[in-house]
Amino acid sequence: MREKVLVYSRFAKSLMQRIGARFELMDAAGKPPQDMFGPDQLSGIRAMITAGGTPLRGEMMDQLPSLGAIVCYGTGYDGVDLAAAAQRSIAVGHSPGANAASVAELAVTLMLAATRRLLVADNYVRSGDWAAAKPSPMMRPQAGIAGRKVGVYGMGEIGRKIAARVAAFEGEVGYFSRSRHEVPYGYFPSLAALADWCSVLVIAVRAGADTHHVVNADILAKLGQDGYLVNIARGSVIDQDALLQALTDKTIAGAGLDVYAKEPYAPDALTALPNVVLTPHIGGHTLESHVAMQDCVIANLESFFAGRPLAYPVR
Amino acid sequence: MREKVLVYSRFAKSLMQRIGARFELMDAAGKPPQDMFGPDQLSGIRAMITAGGTPLRGEMMDQLPSLGAIVCYGTGYDGVDLAAAAQRSIAVGHSPGANAASVAELAVTLMLAATRRLLVADNYVRSGDWAAAKPSPMMRPQAGIAGRKVGVYGMGEIGRKIAARVAAFEGEVGYFSRSRHEVPYGYFPSLAALADWCSVLVIAVRAGADTHHVVNADILAKLGQDGYLVNIARGSVIDQDALLQALTDKTIAGAGLDVYAKEPYAPDALTALPNVVLTPHIGGHTLESHVAMQDCVIANLESFFAGRPLAYPVR
Repeated sequence: MREKVLVYSRFAKSLMQRIGARFELMDAAGKPPQDMFGPDQLSGIRAMITAGGTPLRGEMMDQLPSLGAIVCYGTGYDGVDLAAAAQRSIAVGHSPGANAASVAELAVTLMLAATRRLLVADNYVRSGDWAAAKPSPMMRPQAGIAGRKVGVYGMGEIGRKIAARVAAFEGEVGYFSRSRHEVPYGYFPSLAALADWCSVLVIAVRAGADTHHVVNADILAKLGQDGYLVNIARGSVIDQDALLQALTDKTIAGAGLDVYAKEPYAPDALTALPNVVLTPHIGGHTLESHVAMQDCVIANLESFFAGRPLAYPVR
Repeated sequence: MREKVLVYSRFAKSLMQRIGARFELMDAAGKPPQDMFGPDQLSGIRAMITAGGTPLRGEMMDQLPSLGAIVCYGTGYDGVDLAAAAQRSIAVGHSPGANAASVAELAVTLMLAATRRLLVADNYVRSGDWAAAKPSPMMRPQAGIAGRKVGVYGMGEIGRKIAARVAAFEGEVGYFSRSRHEVPYGYFPSLAALADWCSVLVIAVRAGADTHHVVNADILAKLGQDGYLVNIARGSVIDQDALLQALTDKTIAGAGLDVYAKEPYAPDALTALPNVVLTPHIGGHTLESHVAMQDCVIANLESFFAGRPLAYPVR
C-alpha cells in the first residue's frame, strides 16, 4: 500500500504525476484541507508537501494529529512556523540548492533586462517606432554592467551563484550578509552601506521575521537615481509601497521583480510602470530545477516513511 | 581653424557634440552628401565618419576627391568597400573592441530573455493572467542555461566575451570560427557541426561576403525544436526569410535578435511572434561603450590630420 501524502499548495501537473507515482496524494489544491477531507482522513496523514512560502501555522498542524513531516518544495520554508513544528515533533524538510542555478539565472536575467531596458527596446521595434526613427527618451543609452557596482544581499548558494555570474560581466560585486563568507567580493557591514555603494542591488536573502521590509524607503534612497533593484527572494523583504513610490518618483531608475508582497498578484501601480520587468515567481521554474526539487521531495518522503531522519532537513 | 569632417550616417547628439567640439562637422544626417553640400564643399572634405554597416562604395568616394580617411563608429566596417578605398589610397579606421563588453552583454541578455521567455512572463503578470491563474502553454518550464550546450559562431573579442559570460551560467560552450583559438571551449570544424551539437546558437561573426546568409534553413533545422538563435552581429549573416519560417513552424523554439536584414526595420511577420525578443541594434548602446567608441573616432581623426597612420586602422 502506498503511503498517503497531503498536498497543501497548488503544484504543477508534472510534479503531481511524478510524486503521485510513488505516494497516494491527497490534493487540497491550495484550499483548506479540512474543507476537502473529513476528520478521519486528516487524522491518517503523516506527511505533507507544501510550497515554502505558503503560511502553515500551528493551528493547521493541529488538524493533522499524525503529522510527522512537512516537506517544502523548493529552498524556502518561510511560511512554515518552525517553532510550532518543533513543539509537535514534526520534521521539516526542503530542497536546498536544487533551484539555485535557475534562480540565480533569473536574477541576472532581470538585472540585464532592467538595466538594458529590454522591454522598452522590444516594444520600440514591434511598434514600428524604430523604423519611423521616433525619438524615445527611454531608449537613451544606459550604463552597462561592466564597471558597475552590483550589491548582493545574502550570500547563500543563490547569492554566490548570482555573484559569480555578475562578475563574468565585468561588474564589481559587493555583498552584505549576516556573516562574512570566504568569497572574492567586498563585504559591507550593513545593507545601508551596501546600498550606498552599489547601483544595482540584488536581493537573495532568506526571508524571515528579521528581514521583513528591510529594503525600505531609506535603502532605496541610498541606491539612488541610477539605481536598480532586483528581487528573486521573497516579496516580504521589500516594503512594496515604498518601492512603488521610489519607482514612480524616479528615486531609483528601475527594478526587476520575480516576487511580490501578495502572490499571485502585482498591484496595478506596478504593472503600469515602463521601468520595471516583472515575472510571476518563476525563479526556480526550469526543467532541471523542477526535477532536482522533485528529487529532494521524494528523498525526504522516502526517508521519513522508512523511519529515518529527513534526507534534506531544514537546519 | 578646425578640420572639416563629413558625417555620413545618422548619429546621436552626444557623439555629435563631443566630436563637434574638436572638428567642424558637415552633417549629411544619413542623406546623400551631394544633396546636402555643393561640389566645392565636398571637394574640401578629407575625412568622414560613418556607421560600419552603412553602404559606402567607390562611386560615393569619387564624390569626395580629397578623401583620405573613412572612420567607422563601432567595430564593424562591412558597409565599406575596402578594395575601393585601397584603390583610392583612403585609410579605413574603426573602434576595435570598444563595444565588445556591451555587445556581449546584450547577446547574453537576449539569450536569457528568449530561453526564460521573459516577455511572455512579464505580460503574464501585467495582464492579470497570473492573478487569475490562467493556464498558459508558453509559461511551461524550459531548460535553463546550466547544462545547456551553447554554440558561439565567431571567436573575436565579442565572441570570447560571450563565451566567458555563458560559461559563468554553467552552460557548456562550443564554437566555430575560421581558425582555432586558444580558448577553453570545444572547437567545431563547421557551422553545421556546431548547430548540430548546440541548442543555443549565438552569432558573433564579422559580417562579409563569405558569411552572407550562412545561417540558412539547413542550419536552423540542425539547431532543432528546442533550439534558440541569437544574433548581435549583422542581419546579413542570417537568411531572414528562412528564420521567419523556422520560428513560425516551430522548427526552432525561439530567437533573440538585435540586427536585421534591412535596418531600421523588422518585418511584421517577425514582430507578430511571441517567441522572439527584438532589440533595435543597441548592442553597443551603453554609456561606456559610446565613450570608448568616441575615443577611437577622435584618435583616428587626430592621427589622420596630424599626418600619421590611423590609430585604429582596419587590418
